[in-house]
Amino acid sequence: MREELLPPAPVLPSRRHLLSIGDLTALDVERLLDTARSFELSLEREVKKLPTLRGRTVVNVFYESSTRTSASFELAAKRLSADTLSIRAAGSSVDKGESLKDTALTLGAYEPDVIVIRHPQIGAPHLVARLTRARIVNAGDGTHQHPTQALLDLHALRGAFGRLEGLHVAIVGDVSHSRVARSLVQALALVGAHVTLVGPATLIPRGIEALGCEIAHEIEAIGAADVVYVLRLQHERMQAGASFVPSLREYTARWGITPARLRPGQRVMHPGPMNRGVEIDPRVADAPDALIEAQVRAGLVVRMAVLYDLLTTSPAGVREASAAEVA
Amino acid sequence: MREELLPPAPVLPSRRHLLSIGDLTALDVERLLDTARSFELSLEREVKKLPTLRGRTVVNVFYESSTRTSASFELAAKRLSADTLSIRAAGSSVDKGESLKDTALTLGAYEPDVIVIRHPQIGAPHLVARLTRARIVNAGDGTHQHPTQALLDLHALRGAFGRLEGLHVAIVGDVSHSRVARSLVQALALVGAHVTLVGPATLIPRGIEALGCEIAHEIEAIGAADVVYVLRLQHERMQAGASFVPSLREYTARWGITPARLRPGQRVMHPGPMNRGVEIDPRVADAPDALIEAQVRAGLVVRMAVLYDLLTTSPAGVREASAAEVA
Amino acid sequence: MREELLPPAPVLPSRRHLLSIGDLTALDVERLLDTARSFELSLEREVKKLPTLRGRTVVNVFYESSTRTSASFELAAKRLSADTLSIRAAGSSVDKGESLKDTALTLGAYEPDVIVIRHPQIGAPHLVARLTRARIVNAGDGTHQHPTQALLDLHALRGAFGRLEGLHVAIVGDVSHSRVARSLVQALALVGAHVTLVGPATLIPRGIEALGCEIAHEIEAIGAADVVYVLRLQHERMQAGASFVPSLREYTARWGITPARLRPGQRVMHPGPMNRGVEIDPRVADAPDALIEAQVRAGLVVRMAVLYDLLTTSPAGVREASAAEVA
Repeated sequence: MREELLPPAPVLPSRRHLLSIGDLTALDVERLLDTARSFELSLEREVKKLPTLRGRTVVNVFYESSTRTSASFELAAKRLSADTLSIRAAGSSVDKGESLKDTALTLGAYEPDVIVIRHPQIGAPHLVARLTRARIVNAGDGTHQHPTQALLDLHALRGAFGRLEGLHVAIVGDVSHSRVARSLVQALALVGAHVTLVGPATLIPRGIEALGCEIAHEIEAIGAADVVYVLRLQHERMQAGASFVPSLREYTARWGITPARLRPGQRVMHPGPMNRGVEIDPRVADAPDALIEAQVRAGLVVRMAVLYDLLTTSPAGVREASAAEVA
Repeated sequence: MREELLPPAPVLPSRRHLLSIGDLTALDVERLLDTARSFELSLEREVKKLPTLRGRTVVNVFYESSTRTSASFELAAKRLSADTLSIRAAGSSVDKGESLKDTALTLGAYEPDVIVIRHPQIGAPHLVARLTRARIVNAGDGTHQHPTQALLDLHALRGAFGRLEGLHVAIVGDVSHSRVARSLVQALALVGAHVTLVGPATLIPRGIEALGCEIAHEIEAIGAADVVYVLRLQHERMQAGASFVPSLREYTARWGITPARLRPGQRVMHPGPMNRGVEIDPRVADAPDALIEAQVRAGLVVRMAVLYDLLTTSPAGVREASAAEVA
Repeated sequence: MREELLPPAPVLPSRRHLLSIGDLTALDVERLLDTARSFELSLEREVKKLPTLRGRTVVNVFYESSTRTSASFELAAKRLSADTLSIRAAGSSVDKGESLKDTALTLGAYEPDVIVIRHPQIGAPHLVARLTRARIVNAGDGTHQHPTQALLDLHALRGAFGRLEGLHVAIVGDVSHSRVARSLVQALALVGAHVTLVGPATLIPRGIEALGCEIAHEIEAIGAADVVYVLRLQHERMQAGASFVPSLREYTARWGITPARLRPGQRVMHPGPMNRGVEIDPRVADAPDALIEAQVRAGLVVRMAVLYDLLTTSPAGVREASAAEVA
């Protein structure tokens, strides 16, 4: 049923995991976004569920809370008819001091098809990949990577501009604490977009130019960009550490994105959850041409595409299962 | 399969949301209770699941905890073959200070068919209704409304008495802090039952007679009623505020429902969870003719009926989907 | 579909509940392990889901947290196509002081097919069995019983040794606080294995020999065993009480299982979660011939077998439903 809505069979070799944007080629990205676009069409139907991954199991393990990411992975799996099991660290054996290694072995023993993992420790998803036979999706490891966020940002951008190559994106704010920024800079470089990181020197890590971007320390630098990507000020992470920012009020005055700082036609993005009135003015967030809701909407279909891609494409490029086989 | 158990197609126009008992007509209530009765028959079968809402997604968002209500909505959706996604406020982006508005936009972007929401703020479900394309069910907003509780109470009453019109129900206790009481008074008035609110002046809000009920400040006033509906003493809410009640012991002595205070044939109800030994004597709660277990049982089928009604009836009265189409 | 992988229809009378190993006969155990073995074969297939319990509902109620047990029950139910509802005590009406009795009545009113319950109070599952019409599985009640853990241990042992009768198992450590030990001693006695409990006198309850085992208070007693079963040191339970153990360091020195304390060919088990470096040396835990991962793997298929057995076998030995009927 609804076969006509299924994306074309992938014909290119693909990885068994999605651990980092660095694992992907430009062709991989294009294939994933095309698949996401196919799923977008299926969501316009009255009944939105597809039989594609029927009988498969996706385990979501979140060691840090997130409504957006965990809900959209769970829903993505369900829309493709997969079964889901969601484990949150609070209330899990983690409380009893079990090591990540033992948790990985436990999860692996259940033979899930995919494990989606968010963990505060950099490299945790790589460890789980080594210790299990499942496909692993990194849903955020420390300040390192969050590849599906970068992919959904590309999807929202492509939807708005019709292209990615040659776009100029200014990423503003707390780059240091942001895995979103790190993944996105890599992803934009991969597709030929131009990136400027804009923020105070205390919030932009040294040497990040090596990823292929420019750096500016005045807010006026956003003027040249097609898109202003506003990062969340992670003040809950900062309170424990040194004072990266003099005060919230001063941060807002200097770096907050207001209507006055934007020029007509500039599009605004934010990965959420937003601190309205801190890094972004509510009038900017709610403007009709903001891409923020498009980003959330992209999250669902991009994650559907990632799950589909991992489960239907093998490293050797041979399709392992088709919708017809499992339906 | 099992088509014979499906309720008849609704023929009356219906609302896209269930936000308040005030939104319903007497005919709406009758249709919902008839549908619930049909589902009750289906639960007597060995396999209790119906294919009615296959492919649909119901998102449950609970900003206040509740085993009964969240479990019965989740199970109601699953019994109708819908997919469910359950989000609890603890461990969600709410912890990061995201506004209800942004949470609503996030949920809406996933295009669920129904959002069931419980929230401490009055009117929160109305806001989500305005910001999304989903059908919204109010599962409790502050001290305002809890319409499915009132409907399940009507269902349990109709099951016990065979009718609703002309019944006399005494609602006893903490009316002020109770959305249950507020919804139930409206619902009973709608179907032609007679209501007396019984309790101390500190626990009955002024002007509530306007909803169509009488007020009494002595426990003896329950004597004339067919049904004694005992409200939960919300002492966890009271501790933070003023002393509405001199002491638990004194409350129990004056307002607690004991066997001695009931006359033969009076039926007792309680929305749960009960404080046994506070507002209700355990012998009353466990008496064979108490309707308390019937209420819990009604919760499941009434919520199935509400989900079915919202998803198969449009504002213009045209059925949007039939079981046959989605099966 | 995949009918060839379904286990043979049970031909022996069986109980409607799994409350204690004491409820089972040796033949019951053999049938359950044979069923689990059948499911093990099904897990080697690309698509692991079976249609056996389609339309059935399994409710998991966990009043104590556990990644392993709750996840494996939930996944077991889903692999058999049952619907699941998972309730955790934190965030449930339990917080509002509802009694276990009322929670049981609430759950029962939803008419689930199976209730899986973990509760700190001994006998809680028996109470729920009396108050509902569901089949009950005890997933751990206080320090009393944890029958599916014992069954999965038998399954892992049978997989490794090809037999159970005549095996010699040394169970080492904190027997007093362990429902695992209590269930396992009974289960091993039932199948004709030989058990020695090894630990300090403070951690082995008096009179436990009555279950059919020997007791030793020196670690050297493990030398004669085919299998060394290492119990978790429940130090989180001990902190509140008396000092059962002089110090963690001393416990490890005297009772910790190290490579030096094992003889070649001895197999090691642990119910998890492990305190690596306390009761078990990491080199022992990670040794290729340890049975610990086999235990976790057995958890899934044994719980599938228990659910299948309870729902397809009646007390009178007549099958109530077959895969064909519900598929």
